[in-house]
Amino acid sequence: MKIRIGILGYGNLGKGIECAIKQNDDMELVAVFTRRPPEKVKILTEGVAIYHVDQILDKKDDIDVLILCGGSATDLPVQTPEYAKYFNVVDSFDTHARIPEHFAAVDASAKENGNVAMISCGWDPGMFSINRLYGEAVLPKGSAYTFWGKGVSQGHSDAIRRIDGVANAIQYTIPIDEALEAVRSGSNPQLTARQKHLRECFVVAEEGADLTRIEQEIKTMPNYFADYDTIVHFISEETLKKEHAGMAHGGFVIQSSKTGWNEENIAIIEYSLKLDSNPEFTSLVLVAYARAVYRMKKEGMSGCKTVFDVAPAYLSPYSAEELRKRIL
Amino acid sequence: MKIRIGILGYGNLGKGIECAIKQNDDMELVAVFTRRPPEKVKILTEGVAIYHVDQILDKKDDIDVLILCGGSATDLPVQTPEYAKYFNVVDSFDTHARIPEHFAAVDASAKENGNVAMISCGWDPGMFSINRLYGEAVLPKGSAYTFWGKGVSQGHSDAIRRIDGVANAIQYTIPIDEALEAVRSGSNPQLTARQKHLRECFVVAEEGADLTRIEQEIKTMPNYFADYDTIVHFISEETLKKEHAGMAHGGFVIQSSKTGWNEENIAIIEYSLKLDSNPEFTSLVLVAYARAVYRMKKEGMSGCKTVFDVAPAYLSPYSAEELRKRIL
Repeated sequence: MKIRIGILGYGNLGKGIECAIKQNDDMELVAVFTRRPPEKVKILTEGVAIYHVDQILDKKDDIDVLILCGGSATDLPVQTPEYAKYFNVVDSFDTHARIPEHFAAVDASAKENGNVAMISCGWDPGMFSINRLYGEAVLPKGSAYTFWGKGVSQGHSDAIRRIDGVANAIQYTIPIDEALEAVRSGSNPQLTARQKHLRECFVVAEEGADLTRIEQEIKTMPNYFADYDTIVHFISEETLKKEHAGMAHGGFVIQSSKTGWNEENIAIIEYSLKLDSNPEFTSLVLVAYARAVYRMKKEGMSGCKTVFDVAPAYLSPYSAEELRKRIL
Repeated sequence: MKIRIGILGYGNLGKGIECAIKQNDDMELVAVFTRRPPEKVKILTEGVAIYHVDQILDKKDDIDVLILCGGSATDLPVQTPEYAKYFNVVDSFDTHARIPEHFAAVDASAKENGNVAMISCGWDPGMFSINRLYGEAVLPKGSAYTFWGKGVSQGHSDAIRRIDGVANAIQYTIPIDEALEAVRSGSNPQLTARQKHLRECFVVAEEGADLTRIEQEIKTMPNYFADYDTIVHFISEETLKKEHAGMAHGGFVIQSSKTGWNEENIAIIEYSLKLDSNPEFTSLVLVAYARAVYRMKKEGMSGCKTVFDVAPAYLSPYSAEELRKRIL
């Protein structure tokens, strides 16, 4: 019998989950839930029903794991604790600063109802977090570096869109090659935000807007841009749609350390991702962890989990024996 | 209280463990056991006793985890099941084909005595295995590639040394750049052994030996060299000692896959190691897993474990709360 997956929310991530399930032979998509009128939502998988989210509890017994594809700002802080009452769930909550409170709320709800809830899954938080952990555990006296991109930062794009006179905007975070090479050399450099990443913005201005002021407001925006070298291009909405609709992303987690009695040697661990589609890859990670959630629940576990709590073997459809024989 | 580590066997790996403990503030080295006369063994840590291995059971209660630093060919198949009776143990057993039987023997012994035994730890098997597992779990329709080097292969060096007329030899396994680049391009190439790695041999011949025959025997040796492009250099013992005593190693684990409903996108995961000292890095991994073993034992677990069975959080000295807050 296959692992029966439900999807709540059918945007880029929901569609990514659907594609990811297609690549996992031990899983099947059984239902998509949406806040929109279901008849207005078209999905890719034939024969799978689309329901309004109000009907979700009726399908409780048909779903092994519900994957929550809402946003971290307002959807998941409510949805994950709520649905962890009725389902095993996986989310991709990525507001780093609010993870402790999200964990606490989800843990209480999942434990009380005997479900397993995996939060903050994907690649960052997610695979990158695991590599930060393995990195500092194996090289405890080393330095840790995370670089992102090249890829769109939704948060930074949104911040530009809030500026008066801006109609639309896309911001790319770009790792700086010289910084990457310095880290890879093993010199353990201390790098400022400006030295690590460049920010490139493509902005559609409203008619008659003061471009000089907009550029100035972007470049001096605290937290988002002031500490970085920022490039601003003004383009048309048409060009934005045509040339900046891609969802490529990626990045690097590097741990660099000295080894040996007198720290005479260098060891460098590097993990990197190169992704044409950020939501499709994120979805593949979420689906692998849905398998882990399904198995942990079967073993009688409950409560909130993160990628740190899951032994690698839980992610694989293969038995421990086969994994030891084939890829250990 | 610190985690009390014992070392059995003081060669390159044993010394590496000693260096690794120095970098882990929650651990202390309490004893080194050797098959040599203890007075002939000098270690780096002040105030730590060296015992003959015959005395090891007397120290049973002073040691939380015993790290076994013997070889995979003859030492570990005997030592790990034997000492798992009395200690929590970690080994670096790396004869891939014999892992299933080693696991079975160690598991029986550890379970019967309520101990935790971690086998096949290090970087391959070890960190590379974990990355192969995460890679295929997250990108199940992708292709997996492992490249090793540049570094010395002990097995291939030994194979050359067994040839008549050879006094000494060192063999480097070298990944071929074109193959690595082809994999990184996302083209999912089918690569032969010859296309992936080059073998470069530095050979000291005995006086009067037939160099042409030796070179021919190396290059045509089945399993070891026949399927590869192999370069043979004849050098003096002096040059070998001077220029080829380094223990650098490393390698790459890459998973490459298509994503998307029509497989229209590419995703590439790459994990790589660049190590000046293979035994020092291996030791740092073993010591991190010794921490995991210590904790698993405290939680009441027993039996044989591999890196696949250990949730990442067990490797870290930090609490789950702190890890979620700081690096998730």
